[in-house]
Amino acid sequence: MKLVDEVLAGNRRAIAKTITLVENEAPEKEELLGGLYAHTGKAYVIGVTGSPGAGKSSLVDKLTGEIRREGLSVGIIAVDPTSPFSGGALLGDRIRMQEHVLDEGVFIRSMGTRGSLGGLSRATKEVIKVLDASGKDVVLVETVGVGQSELDIMNAADTTVVVLTPGAGDVIQTLKAGIMEIADVFAVNKADMEGAQKVVTEVQTMLDLDLKRQWRPPVVSTVSLTGEGLADLYAAVKRHREYLGENGKLQMVRERRTRSEVIDIVMEHLKQMVIQQFRASAQLDGILDLVVRRELDPYRASMQIIKEFISGDKG
Amino acid sequence: MKLVDEVLAGNRRAIAKTITLVENEAPEKEELLGGLYAHTGKAYVIGVTGSPGAGKSSLVDKLTGEIRREGLSVGIIAVDPTSPFSGGALLGDRIRMQEHVLDEGVFIRSMGTRGSLGGLSRATKEVIKVLDASGKDVVLVETVGVGQSELDIMNAADTTVVVLTPGAGDVIQTLKAGIMEIADVFAVNKADMEGAQKVVTEVQTMLDLDLKRQWRPPVVSTVSLTGEGLADLYAAVKRHREYLGENGKLQMVRERRTRSEVIDIVMEHLKQMVIQQFRASAQLDGILDLVVRRELDPYRASMQIIKEFISGDKG
Repeated sequence: MKLVDEVLAGNRRAIAKTITLVENEAPEKEELLGGLYAHTGKAYVIGVTGSPGAGKSSLVDKLTGEIRREGLSVGIIAVDPTSPFSGGALLGDRIRMQEHVLDEGVFIRSMGTRGSLGGLSRATKEVIKVLDASGKDVVLVETVGVGQSELDIMNAADTTVVVLTPGAGDVIQTLKAGIMEIADVFAVNKADMEGAQKVVTEVQTMLDLDLKRQWRPPVVSTVSLTGEGLADLYAAVKRHREYLGENGKLQMVRERRTRSEVIDIVMEHLKQMVIQQFRASAQLDGILDLVVRRELDPYRASMQIIKEFISGDKG
Repeated sequence: MKLVDEVLAGNRRAIAKTITLVENEAPEKEELLGGLYAHTGKAYVIGVTGSPGAGKSSLVDKLTGEIRREGLSVGIIAVDPTSPFSGGALLGDRIRMQEHVLDEGVFIRSMGTRGSLGGLSRATKEVIKVLDASGKDVVLVETVGVGQSELDIMNAADTTVVVLTPGAGDVIQTLKAGIMEIADVFAVNKADMEGAQKVVTEVQTMLDLDLKRQWRPPVVSTVSLTGEGLADLYAAVKRHREYLGENGKLQMVRERRTRSEVIDIVMEHLKQMVIQQFRASAQLDGILDLVVRRELDPYRASMQIIKEFISGDKG
């Protein structure tokens, strides 16, 4: 496919077009991603997550600067699983990040919620692959912390940076609620604000209590607006990358990720097949009717449907 | 099953136990829900959604009072798809809703994020069925508006009340971002605050522009803390219920919902089967290995796996 070759050559317009096709679930999506797949696995994926207002955009901006200084190219995906109640406000934030817009070595893309959050998380992983195949050395994924969705997205990152700030609520509560597990590096941003040192101490205390983990996440103080601490933050990310590189840990993690991605694709295809078969089979539809009339419960019905589906597909 | 009979008899302890089993995906979950299923479809389901701080808890509290005054029993599900960044704060909110705790005709249950948001939405729908089967006349589902998840949950409601407040950001943006479509009734809460009338006007203007819809959502001003406007709100919900009752609309909507629920269950079962078969089949695992080594792309792999899966299940 011509588009595949263009993406592999790093053509910006082709990358943008491919991402749009992926986002829109275009018919050629699988052919595109399938064609790119052999060329993925080279980019290092860094996730940056934190609550709204934590200064993630400017932090990603400055982090990009650090990575660029090493001569590495960067793909940036800003994921905004925007609440319908906050409208497009978060996407507007992105506009502030102008510094790298004209840099040929940086490709920036914002992604909003289209369809379900599950869909967003899948699309983000697909876009990571597009940027990876296009030759970007590093892919930065920024998500706004609004729920389980960004945890799912962070599963696609090799190193996850959790951004905390003073005055953003109870840090210990946050850490207990699943954030501790996903963090490879902590950035305590707005470190020039009152209470920042307290946040650092609280995180360190929590880490002291966590005796099981092999990798102790560094806690780095940053001021993303001025760039203070950003070199330290990038150094911490690189230390984690080195750690993963030892004993094939990175490869193991990525292998597990690939396996679960394939199963997700299998399920997506199976769902399309099931829905198609419903359209074609009066018998399947008859089972649904029994459920609608409450003469059959959905669980027994589901077993009958699966039997029907598998035998129907034999012929 | 004894537990099924006890739930059908309205035994509070049995209801609580069943909900816990459902939430925890216990092995007996499907048998329980299957046994209850024939007795569902009687409760009227009202969804209440809005941004954090909109006063939904007290609104649900007062709405419960209105419904109870009619002698109807109420099941309340407070869904908190809590951001890991806000910790358990939202669940704490629930504690304020004490008024009906001692009322035998009211059953209150909070549900937090366990596992994925997709899982929460499914669990919520299952808990609605438990409360429905237990004989509750009305089931109230309250969700915090943090994303697509609460839209999914609201699909299970017969009437959806969207709660707006003055000063909670751009109402028009909110309405444009998918909220307009799910609202059957608007409550402009904190109507005693400055700017409330402006919110009402903005919603009405948006509704004026929406010429396609058959049902024009009433816009009701409420002050949930004092109970002002709550009788009007309940009247608006009942008008929508009557509207749905005409020409079998309610039945049609519920039928469509049942069909998609069955397909969800089918997919859940198929996924378990696929994963099981992976464990058992060296051939399937071999396909995954090719993907891991990037010798096969995930999409072609998925087709091979499906073929393998369907033929493997024949024997």
